[in-house]
Amino acid sequence: MDFYRGRRALVTGGLGFIGSNLVRRLVRAGASVTVIDAAFPDQGANLFNLKGVLEEVVLVIADIGDLEEVSNYLVDQEIIFNLASSTSHIGSMQNPFKDLERNCSSQLRFLGAVRELSPGARVIYTGSRSQYGTPLYQPVDEDHPTKPLDINGIHKCTVEEYHRLYHQLSHIRFTSLRLTNVFGPRHQMLHDGHGFLNWFIRKALAGEELQVFGDGSQERDFLYVEDAVDAILLAGATGECEGRIFNVASEVPVSVAEAARAVAEMAGVGWRCVAYPKDRLSIEPGSVRLSSRRFREATGWSPRHTFLEGLERTLDFYGRHGHHYFHPAKGRIFLERKLD
Amino acid sequence: MDFYRGRRALVTGGLGFIGSNLVRRLVRAGASVTVIDAAFPDQGANLFNLKGVLEEVVLVIADIGDLEEVSNYLVDQEIIFNLASSTSHIGSMQNPFKDLERNCSSQLRFLGAVRELSPGARVIYTGSRSQYGTPLYQPVDEDHPTKPLDINGIHKCTVEEYHRLYHQLSHIRFTSLRLTNVFGPRHQMLHDGHGFLNWFIRKALAGEELQVFGDGSQERDFLYVEDAVDAILLAGATGECEGRIFNVASEVPVSVAEAARAVAEMAGVGWRCVAYPKDRLSIEPGSVRLSSRRFREATGWSPRHTFLEGLERTLDFYGRHGHHYFHPAKGRIFLERKLD
Repeated sequence: MDFYRGRRALVTGGLGFIGSNLVRRLVRAGASVTVIDAAFPDQGANLFNLKGVLEEVVLVIADIGDLEEVSNYLVDQEIIFNLASSTSHIGSMQNPFKDLERNCSSQLRFLGAVRELSPGARVIYTGSRSQYGTPLYQPVDEDHPTKPLDINGIHKCTVEEYHRLYHQLSHIRFTSLRLTNVFGPRHQMLHDGHGFLNWFIRKALAGEELQVFGDGSQERDFLYVEDAVDAILLAGATGECEGRIFNVASEVPVSVAEAARAVAEMAGVGWRCVAYPKDRLSIEPGSVRLSSRRFREATGWSPRHTFLEGLERTLDFYGRHGHHYFHPAKGRIFLERKLD
Repeated sequence: MDFYRGRRALVTGGLGFIGSNLVRRLVRAGASVTVIDAAFPDQGANLFNLKGVLEEVVLVIADIGDLEEVSNYLVDQEIIFNLASSTSHIGSMQNPFKDLERNCSSQLRFLGAVRELSPGARVIYTGSRSQYGTPLYQPVDEDHPTKPLDINGIHKCTVEEYHRLYHQLSHIRFTSLRLTNVFGPRHQMLHDGHGFLNWFIRKALAGEELQVFGDGSQERDFLYVEDAVDAILLAGATGECEGRIFNVASEVPVSVAEAARAVAEMAGVGWRCVAYPKDRLSIEPGSVRLSSRRFREATGWSPRHTFLEGLERTLDFYGRHGHHYFHPAKGRIFLERKLD
């Protein structure tokens, strides 16, 4: 991707799952990359995620809303991949103020600084399927109402709206990509609060039986992280994406039971269905299929990996590097400290 | 309205414009009324608004998010009219964090306490036309996308979403009424940040010429405050309104120029068109007409006052009581202090 050669790119959340996979690709493409990451202990930051490219990037450990710390690094960026997000569906119901502070407040401060320090920068925001809530029709397109099932989903919408408004006022040039169930290497493996597929993989690699909530018939369209990174890079390089909101989904429905069976078979463990825990049931949207027709038409993007290919690569990655992800206190390079 | 006789009702923002008109009606209907109002100096709180009924209500001067102050008053309320809102379209662009704190943070705390202390209470939230932004089609119905033109409008949507989610989780029983340009007695008259019609009236009563931004052809459907109060009371008393979002609009378009002429003629002053100030232009949505068909069908509501009747009553009110509203330091009973 020649577009990125020599460009000044900033990735917020760049130590995390999608962010780090993106940073690695940007470095390979010859971009001049700055990473800002708050490294909140309950989120996905992991220094191992950038192993091999750490020396190639400017790394700032700070909350994006902490302008004293980050302002210097926001000057004259050409393209900002704004992936920093504190994601906790159940946690956001237990502590909604923390979610508000980490997402809305920080992003509002950050965008206020971006419009001053990098006016006219391209800003790619990554939203989420969770913004839609329970589908009223399927496949869900970008015009579907946003009725999230948790506070975190509401705040994802609010932050997307900050971007949309600042774009409309010509302060930034934004695109929002609402990503579906992204999975793959470099996802945190310490808790099950960020999607069940990686958690299945951790369980399976530990030789444990997988538990599917409900009958497992609810479908998701899983997206392999490299395909998500393709989409993010394309969005940043495509003028037609400016000012628009897109779904990015594999459009290949896989039931939760099928996913469990695939992981279980690859790892040689069993799986079974169990009743929903109560706190999960209220935020379970049932089967969800998204249409990413608009994004395909605007960019020519399509996923390069099948679900099973992605799964194999993911199992292979964690089979080799799992010790950096599975054990909080053993072999892992992880920023435990909170800076305040 | 027999429904309200003997009921425990809480009105947040009850010293303000719509809130105080609502409180007066509730007291008349025999409800047991508690008022919570932060009395922010830049908002509409005015003790004169409750003159004659102050002795009939429990009045708490506190931010709704200050749970130490307000929790005692949230216990076992039957119906909560949640009108507290810090409204400043231009101010929210200059200081978005203040808007976030006063609206989202406070409401999130408040609703968290309500679900604990008055579980199952009816909660009527008042939203605003500003949630829609520039219309994509007209008349704007409740399914129209919400693309506000300022940060305050975004936060109005976020707070409505908190209500919608807590309703969905069976914590509260909510209705949202998105009100159009409400005007009438008891509106603050100290600045022009809350809608231009009351500001026209103040100018006209001071003998000043009225200035219309642009050519004045942009239309609004003005709603007289007593008609808005009718709608709010009906929503609280009508089971069919639970869990739903409604527009409440007069559905009678009046151009800004017509409104200026009417005010000018009644008060005997002149008016003319001037160029838009730059900060106004970016948040000007053009002509906006809302449909309140759904609300009419659910409740049988219709406005009882024509625009000119409402205007006459408003001019009459301020002609008699203007000294309580026009002069911050003269004759006015106003809580200037901020409690922190």
